[in-house]
Amino acid sequence: MENFILTNENAIYYECGFSCDNVIFLNLGKEKFFITDARYTIEAKEYAKKCEVIETGNLVQTAIEILEKNKIKKINFDPNDFTYSMHQSLTSKLKTKFIEKPNFSKLKRIIKSDEEIKYLKKASMLGKDGFKNLAKYLRKNGLNQKENFLHFKAVEKMSNTGKLDLSFDPIFAINENAAKPHALPTNKKLKLHDLLLVDAGVKYKRYCSDRTCTAYVDFETLNFKREQTFKNKKHQEIYDLVYKAQLKAITKAKVGMKASQIDKLARDVIEKAGYGKYFVHSTGHGVGLDIHEFPNINSRSDVIIENNMVFTIEPGIYLPNEFGVRIEDTVVMKNGKAEIL
Amino acid sequence: MENFILTNENAIYYECGFSCDNVIFLNLGKEKFFITDARYTIEAKEYAKKCEVIETGNLVQTAIEILEKNKIKKINFDPNDFTYSMHQSLTSKLKTKFIEKPNFSKLKRIIKSDEEIKYLKKASMLGKDGFKNLAKYLRKNGLNQKENFLHFKAVEKMSNTGKLDLSFDPIFAINENAAKPHALPTNKKLKLHDLLLVDAGVKYKRYCSDRTCTAYVDFETLNFKREQTFKNKKHQEIYDLVYKAQLKAITKAKVGMKASQIDKLARDVIEKAGYGKYFVHSTGHGVGLDIHEFPNINSRSDVIIENNMVFTIEPGIYLPNEFGVRIEDTVVMKNGKAEIL
Repeated sequence: MENFILTNENAIYYECGFSCDNVIFLNLGKEKFFITDARYTIEAKEYAKKCEVIETGNLVQTAIEILEKNKIKKINFDPNDFTYSMHQSLTSKLKTKFIEKPNFSKLKRIIKSDEEIKYLKKASMLGKDGFKNLAKYLRKNGLNQKENFLHFKAVEKMSNTGKLDLSFDPIFAINENAAKPHALPTNKKLKLHDLLLVDAGVKYKRYCSDRTCTAYVDFETLNFKREQTFKNKKHQEIYDLVYKAQLKAITKAKVGMKASQIDKLARDVIEKAGYGKYFVHSTGHGVGLDIHEFPNINSRSDVIIENNMVFTIEPGIYLPNEFGVRIEDTVVMKNGKAEIL
Repeated sequence: MENFILTNENAIYYECGFSCDNVIFLNLGKEKFFITDARYTIEAKEYAKKCEVIETGNLVQTAIEILEKNKIKKINFDPNDFTYSMHQSLTSKLKTKFIEKPNFSKLKRIIKSDEEIKYLKKASMLGKDGFKNLAKYLRKNGLNQKENFLHFKAVEKMSNTGKLDLSFDPIFAINENAAKPHALPTNKKLKLHDLLLVDAGVKYKRYCSDRTCTAYVDFETLNFKREQTFKNKKHQEIYDLVYKAQLKAITKAKVGMKASQIDKLARDVIEKAGYGKYFVHSTGHGVGLDIHEFPNINSRSDVIIENNMVFTIEPGIYLPNEFGVRIEDTVVMKNGKAEIL
């Protein structure tokens, strides 16, 4: 095992099963050090596995002392994980050579263990419960409510009133707002026959779910199922096209393909229908402890897809000033094929 | 005006009145460049003042081209604001000398303009409304509710059901949980005669409020005023002591003092009563676009206090496994003295 140093909370959680927002983690051969301050040492000693927990008022200084004492010649670090000033403080006082290994933790985490998949599945189930509860709320109380109020209700329902952490701040966007890739909630009110896009996820044991539903709005039947029937013909046309693209990618994705081939499966359907230029993002991304992990599912990704990879498939079409449709599910590769979590 | 480069969202907002989560800002003499991607250019062109807005798919590459084209010899940057990899990408391809200026944006922002103080005051008022609404909710519905549920209700009431952004995730802690500086909400239920600590704030035009109240819990009179009457004698003793320390610091703080002298005003009261070792943090911190700005109000800070500085005064006593009390208000220095915002 090579030496490495981490400061990223999720990367550290992956190594030892515990983390906090002020920690330096050192992996020196077989020895692991969890360096943190007095606020976290009690829990760290209880939960961080196979580590020596070290309490200090100055994390960087303590890390330097450990590296010196152990005469460490070289150590890997992720240049995206370090601020420039952190790098300078560490390297200016040490002879240890710091070797740039971009994304080495995320690369390690690209294939999930069966246990991780169990947690990701549980997170997905809890996320689906959240969507169901949100739909129920919207049917009963959604009419004429503003997007920003309903965005808050999405937070409430997805988190089960604060019991679950969210994977990210949900997107709750009606009609033309759903065409904006970074839609912020507005004062726009929810009405009969609207198109509603909701993108949300929750965490279970720190593992994220991620799902986007685009739904037809009425106040009797509103739901976040994959089959949707819109009153507006163009809504239906675009929805069916995105759904077809997503289904194609899910059913045809196979272990051994390049990630770019999965992107192409979805993109070809949309391009052939003449909407290619409105599908403005990649087809998907890995999901795990971070909401964005590897593999990236885009046109440039040569990563070979393997069993136990977990990623989203989320084609979309965004018609500016009109509306947008995205359908996203998280899949796991099992027995060579993609299964929705 | 010296050349500088920024990536921090609030630092950029301060320069031009607009910001987003993917931008490099260049200040080259009199010319300013707001480099961002296609998602943000429409709003940037509308709101970013006195800047040239540049749309690009590769922010770093575009920044390099502008620095080259303008033959920039040296430029200031904040080493805390850059990842190591960002620094490497920029410097490896350029002759421009990058000069470390730690916290230069925060140092600039240490004295607030009258307009900024207006926004901070408005944020404080909105925050106080949130506390009042939370108190009202707790009187009516708080009995026997769990901390984590009530934490969510604090989010709801402070944000006015999603209308306002929060300055940070609120702390909502009962009795012994209030003694933990990083208290995470638990299943503990709110009961008559409990001690309740709530630390929360909201934003107005991106400016933060910050306030902590410790309150006596009953379900008829519960409120977040500064005067509190507890049934438990030790609660009352410690509350009165922290209150005395806070009042002392607020009433005696004067322009021309060192920040450390303000810290000492509060700390001396608590130390003289024998609880010094339970006041485990600094007396305060600056507040502005960031929730933690300058000046730091601690025992090591030599900063001379000036009019139009805005900071918190928040002494606390934390008795492990028993309870904790913190009383925090945000003050502005006006006419030589501290006024609660």
